[in-house]
Amino acid sequence: MITGKDGTKIPRIVIERLPRYYRYFDWLEDKVEKISSKKLGEYMGSSASQVRLDLSYFGDFGQQGYGYNIKKLKRELENILNINAETTFIIIGAGNIGRALTRYRAFRDAGFTLKAIFDIKPVLAGEKIDGIIIHHVREMPDYIKTHKIDIGIIAVPKECANETARTLIDAGIRGILNFAPLDLNVSSTFTVENIHIIDKMLALSFIISSDSANG
Amino acid sequence: MITGKDGTKIPRIVIERLPRYYRYFDWLEDKVEKISSKKLGEYMGSSASQVRLDLSYFGDFGQQGYGYNIKKLKRELENILNINAETTFIIIGAGNIGRALTRYRAFRDAGFTLKAIFDIKPVLAGEKIDGIIIHHVREMPDYIKTHKIDIGIIAVPKECANETARTLIDAGIRGILNFAPLDLNVSSTFTVENIHIIDKMLALSFIISSDSANG
Repeated sequence: MITGKDGTKIPRIVIERLPRYYRYFDWLEDKVEKISSKKLGEYMGSSASQVRLDLSYFGDFGQQGYGYNIKKLKRELENILNINAETTFIIIGAGNIGRALTRYRAFRDAGFTLKAIFDIKPVLAGEKIDGIIIHHVREMPDYIKTHKIDIGIIAVPKECANETARTLIDAGIRGILNFAPLDLNVSSTFTVENIHIIDKMLALSFIISSDSANG
Repeated sequence: MITGKDGTKIPRIVIERLPRYYRYFDWLEDKVEKISSKKLGEYMGSSASQVRLDLSYFGDFGQQGYGYNIKKLKRELENILNINAETTFIIIGAGNIGRALTRYRAFRDAGFTLKAIFDIKPVLAGEKIDGIIIHHVREMPDYIKTHKIDIGIIAVPKECANETARTLIDAGIRGILNFAPLDLNVSSTFTVENIHIIDKMLALSFIISSDSANG
């Protein structure tokens, strides 16, 4: 359970909104000094009271009738989100998605360091992508333990995703970002975030076809 | 506004859950004939009553004390989600993410057809990735109108993302899947789904660091 400054449980949905707050503060930092909860709500697509409630979990940042100090709140969110700590991760699966993620610059800017890639194909072992070595997946458990890896990104076909997750968890990984198109069969106390590209496309497709049917 | 069979508005959060229901039905289809809302809730990580409520927007599928007929519900969801209709899309940005998405096989399996890629670099125009041609982005508006493209996937740097979105919308695109790490500045009635990889990593990072602080 994740608790805020006063010991209340922080809902997962609030946690998932924090990076968006952070992005707005980062963008606003050079533009204005303060921002009201109302204005911030407009950016976030939510209400002023939702903003006040979300941020209240982490301390008393705002001042009634004055607004939030952007620089200060940005710094606080940096600490909360661990942005200046080095978080290490590995990518499992050196296919299209895994390779694209290896070259994705934004990880480093946000404090994430890619340490290695793993793949089941022996022929790929030893190959480098942007300076990062591909290892055979059988070396993964030892690597995670030795290098104290925090996060594993699963970019393998769905048929191997659950086995990969089990290996990661047994080796002591602390969180998984899953790109495989299924919900991993792991304990509900273990931390997984999913990126389900096809689900997003299907939701889009449903909304646009309903819009034309209704309009 | 998207309405269900009886005219009630369907909440966005329910729409976004439908593809997950579909995935479970697809997976269960060859295994069992019927499933209870309780069991389905366990797969979805929600309650039996939530499942009944979600599915009730689309008609009366279940039978009290009998459960849902999986084949029938899968077919219905296929219609609802437009899975057997051909939905067309283009990718804007032939960088790492754009190229990986071009090669992503799962789109076709789910009924999505990639028609073209666009990039701002003149040197890329004419290049083919897996048989799909890269065009210069200035040809995009005409292409969208001529080929009646449904969805645009934005895979450009964040500095160009809003301009790309405006061009897509002006040309008549109906929905956007946005990979750029910002919230697009578009009308709230226009349909956008976001894939914010770094936001997910930051949420993971926050949860695992809080877990160790609290544990």
